[in-house]
Amino acid sequence: MRQTFDETTTPAFGREHAPLIRAAMAAQGLDGFVIPHEDEHQNEYLPAANDRLAWATGFTGSAGAAVVFKDKAAIFVDGRYALQVRDQVDTNLFEVRDLVEGGVPAYLQSEAKSGWTIGYDPRLHSPEALERLRSAAAKAGAALRAVEPNPLDAAWGAARPAQPQAPVHTHPSEFSGEDSTAKRERVGRSLAEQGADAALITAPASNAWLFNIRGGDVIRSPLPLSQALLSADGSARLFLDPAKVTPELPAWLGNGVTLEPPDRLAGALADLSGQRVLVDPSTSSAWYFEALEKAGAQVVRGPDPTALPRASKNPIEIEGARSAHVRDGTALAKFLRWVSTEAAAMLTSELDVVAKLEGFREATGALKDLSFDTIAGAASNGAIVHYRPTKRLAKQLERGSLLLVDSGAQYMDGTTDVTRTVAIGPPSQEMRERFTLVLKGHLALARVRFPAGTTGSALDALARVPLWAAGLDFDHGTGHGVGSYLGVHEGPQRISKLPNNVALKPGMIVSNEPGYYKEGAYGIRIENLQVVTPPEPISGGERPMLGFETLTLAPIDRALVAKEMLTAEELAQLDAYHARVLAVIGPKVDAETRGWLEEVCAPL
Amino acid sequence: MRQTFDETTTPAFGREHAPLIRAAMAAQGLDGFVIPHEDEHQNEYLPAANDRLAWATGFTGSAGAAVVFKDKAAIFVDGRYALQVRDQVDTNLFEVRDLVEGGVPAYLQSEAKSGWTIGYDPRLHSPEALERLRSAAAKAGAALRAVEPNPLDAAWGAARPAQPQAPVHTHPSEFSGEDSTAKRERVGRSLAEQGADAALITAPASNAWLFNIRGGDVIRSPLPLSQALLSADGSARLFLDPAKVTPELPAWLGNGVTLEPPDRLAGALADLSGQRVLVDPSTSSAWYFEALEKAGAQVVRGPDPTALPRASKNPIEIEGARSAHVRDGTALAKFLRWVSTEAAAMLTSELDVVAKLEGFREATGALKDLSFDTIAGAASNGAIVHYRPTKRLAKQLERGSLLLVDSGAQYMDGTTDVTRTVAIGPPSQEMRERFTLVLKGHLALARVRFPAGTTGSALDALARVPLWAAGLDFDHGTGHGVGSYLGVHEGPQRISKLPNNVALKPGMIVSNEPGYYKEGAYGIRIENLQVVTPPEPISGGERPMLGFETLTLAPIDRALVAKEMLTAEELAQLDAYHARVLAVIGPKVDAETRGWLEEVCAPL
Repeated sequence: MRQTFDETTTPAFGREHAPLIRAAMAAQGLDGFVIPHEDEHQNEYLPAANDRLAWATGFTGSAGAAVVFKDKAAIFVDGRYALQVRDQVDTNLFEVRDLVEGGVPAYLQSEAKSGWTIGYDPRLHSPEALERLRSAAAKAGAALRAVEPNPLDAAWGAARPAQPQAPVHTHPSEFSGEDSTAKRERVGRSLAEQGADAALITAPASNAWLFNIRGGDVIRSPLPLSQALLSADGSARLFLDPAKVTPELPAWLGNGVTLEPPDRLAGALADLSGQRVLVDPSTSSAWYFEALEKAGAQVVRGPDPTALPRASKNPIEIEGARSAHVRDGTALAKFLRWVSTEAAAMLTSELDVVAKLEGFREATGALKDLSFDTIAGAASNGAIVHYRPTKRLAKQLERGSLLLVDSGAQYMDGTTDVTRTVAIGPPSQEMRERFTLVLKGHLALARVRFPAGTTGSALDALARVPLWAAGLDFDHGTGHGVGSYLGVHEGPQRISKLPNNVALKPGMIVSNEPGYYKEGAYGIRIENLQVVTPPEPISGGERPMLGFETLTLAPIDRALVAKEMLTAEELAQLDAYHARVLAVIGPKVDAETRGWLEEVCAPL
Repeated sequence: MRQTFDETTTPAFGREHAPLIRAAMAAQGLDGFVIPHEDEHQNEYLPAANDRLAWATGFTGSAGAAVVFKDKAAIFVDGRYALQVRDQVDTNLFEVRDLVEGGVPAYLQSEAKSGWTIGYDPRLHSPEALERLRSAAAKAGAALRAVEPNPLDAAWGAARPAQPQAPVHTHPSEFSGEDSTAKRERVGRSLAEQGADAALITAPASNAWLFNIRGGDVIRSPLPLSQALLSADGSARLFLDPAKVTPELPAWLGNGVTLEPPDRLAGALADLSGQRVLVDPSTSSAWYFEALEKAGAQVVRGPDPTALPRASKNPIEIEGARSAHVRDGTALAKFLRWVSTEAAAMLTSELDVVAKLEGFREATGALKDLSFDTIAGAASNGAIVHYRPTKRLAKQLERGSLLLVDSGAQYMDGTTDVTRTVAIGPPSQEMRERFTLVLKGHLALARVRFPAGTTGSALDALARVPLWAAGLDFDHGTGHGVGSYLGVHEGPQRISKLPNNVALKPGMIVSNEPGYYKEGAYGIRIENLQVVTPPEPISGGERPMLGFETLTLAPIDRALVAKEMLTAEELAQLDAYHARVLAVIGPKVDAETRGWLEEVCAPL
């Protein structure tokens, strides 16, 4: 099995490792050290070798930071991880603080002492984040100092896992839809239009897209850790550990791309004197900016030039996404039949649920990886938004409760991400009503048509208005971008309360996942992926409108739908979706699953 | 009558005045000069003495700019004014350019010649705007130079109207709800919290609010042109033309406020050496920033500290707004009865419509001013969003068409702004359908409940989704803030597609005005004002939710409602609104109007 139910840290991590970090700090003359979750590549998922925050504290969430002073320490997490941090971290050693309200800067400002020197690893912080830290430390009379080597790495020493060296595979045009030369020339032209001579690209997903390669350096995303320098003429230098270079790779990359080991990057940056180099301050760390400025290059700050082209999938990628979702839909149909019949009868455990779903996906023969660890939250575990089942925490299914399953798969032709909430036995009226409010929001965001220029921020409220009217809400975004056999969370678009100026463009894939969580009781989330459709005229209208095509094909539990709460339009929309699920998935599954699908996809 | 139907400029203005401006430019050694619409106070409405753009070009729109080079010139307007500018301006003299796409900076960059010196009046440009101009000119090899005096003012000479000197009146606590001392201490504390010693406030509406005074220096808004320096301790220096100071004013302002003539302001700024002074770069011109920096003050850039307190009306102001809308509602009921009976039968002119409405408002005995010139757009004139009837342009009402009337009043207790669209004779099915789509959006935005922190940008789409689904949209914002016997357009909140990070707060008044415009045919807009209500629990819910209370009380033309397109919820909402209009306004009007109201407010 790919997913494990083990815990990789304990609260003893902090007790054992903080003293080692403090000793290394002292050796470098530091009074404090800042430990972000991010690594050199600012990825969501880290290789074990770079999960410094987990090693230092025990905390394994996907966002956070710690500060170790010589006499005390603090860990910073957001509201999603308020419970998990107390479970994983020794809070006698690490005071728990909010990552968002005040965060690390406020802690530095109030707790650092005048005259202190606080270290940071310049490869791990974006320039903007660093500026906030520097200004906060200055208010306390303390100084920030870039340090090399990272004292935590020194403390970790021989126990630190090796850097990953997974072989880099080619990603053929039948999946990418555009060869790398064309991509590089297209992005290169955009550099020239911005007056830049070159771009430094440090996000592995961007390099994966640009060079049509995939790697295996982190779990759940087929990323090759790498950096690249792209010139406006489309030629490029790709910095990649030689151990990862497979024999076919150089020919695949072609003449326009030179492959170089990572230790040549610093020298390459030093060569850029006088050139205008585009760098993204949200994905590239301060170290790169400093190296370029030291070299006499003119740094142009701007968004990663591959981000928008990568986000807008081409017709081949969209067709691949459709295929991946049909394949995933067959596994989901089998799984959901099993959950609502056998598992609901046996009242099995969350761990069985996870294993069974992985088995159905594995049986497709096309599974490359999960796109993230499956969340199977029974009863009150469903209300913990970032829950991941472990041997210690897993619950058995409970009759009269709900099971929330959020999962996804990596296939060569596409990445999936789907959440279904299933009633285990008869649900309460409250569960049905709240599920239906979530469903109304989900349907509104699925059917909306909108003009060019509309952002995800402008559409977010559509998914919340029915909940708001009932005095309810959910505390996460409504939708994230999704890669094409790449990260399951991908920008720059987003459907969220947070302001976002990126217009939704045809070919962008986003999730639509409103929810409702009753702490200590149950969780509800309904998530489909949907792709933005091109502007099309509407009969009787004047302006072409974009819209969404739903990719995910899996039945929504009718036992949880309070039909009387739906408008005629909503009911027709749900029935049409179910009819489509049956028509597409029915012919591809065994008779037993098909029979079940016919029942659960019948008009309500 | 307050409103006139005359035109104050002609296209000859440019022919006559551009040569005078060029001569004054030459005398100051300038090759070009930039003329923004804004004056020293960055107001929407200008005194005649400051309407430099109109004098230079003939263009009287509320936004725009011109550039006069020694050999050519251009005028810049946004899409709303694309037709009007060609009607008012000699386009042989002034090339018409888009104000938003490229705007003045692009023109400077492409058209200025290397070595040229381009003048600007530093009192008329915000620092941000100036930076864009400077950078664009530099790319052309040209230099910007601040000039004093303004060469346009020199050219205008004796023909320029005098600066207004309307007496400044007190605005008593029965309307303001909070005395000036309390306001100044409250805002002063917020300065201290931001680490500022003082704030320079240059927006007349802010000073009107802060000192509880009203003036008459511009039409349609009771503004006293003025500047103020507010200290963190709540004391203030108010710079006001002595000619405007009425005998009771000094006592009204009290001990904490010194009244000084405007020519003392420069000296007062020079006194601020070493102090931290908050200035709003969006409402204060570059001249203030330069003066403070020259004086050795530390400029803190931040929003006008009175903007948020002013936008969130207190209970007395809200009660005043309710009273103002009841009063306005009686005038509107009489007017709408007249329109849909007598005017529709006579097929009278737009000018009569405007006059009649003003007469009904005047008859309340409480009208201080219109809050803007009434827009009465018959048939195709209704499709021109910024239309204002003039003798030359006014149409007669047409049977089978629509009349759009957007109007408002200034009363001591509140400012109103309302749009109704009325069918003149039987409307077409298309008119009814499109009106009903607009109505659906209007109703959605009126009934929405939302959590604290929600911005107007997040709610904007609710008013558009029904139109979008039909392939339609409207090209203006959905809602603007409204002052309390102050400007009818007031920030910082806004309901708009444009990103806006200001959360809607209890007591904020906003308009709800979706529309639809069929060029050459008719215009539809439905506008009510609504006040944000405090967070209140919802039965069965978990989180208190804010919402809106509709202030405007005037029937919506039932002849235009396609009942079959409304959901049961929408129908109930419209019927309840009409029942409220009848219950509140009915008892306050004559029997004939009441009888008519009973008909048009009956359940649909």
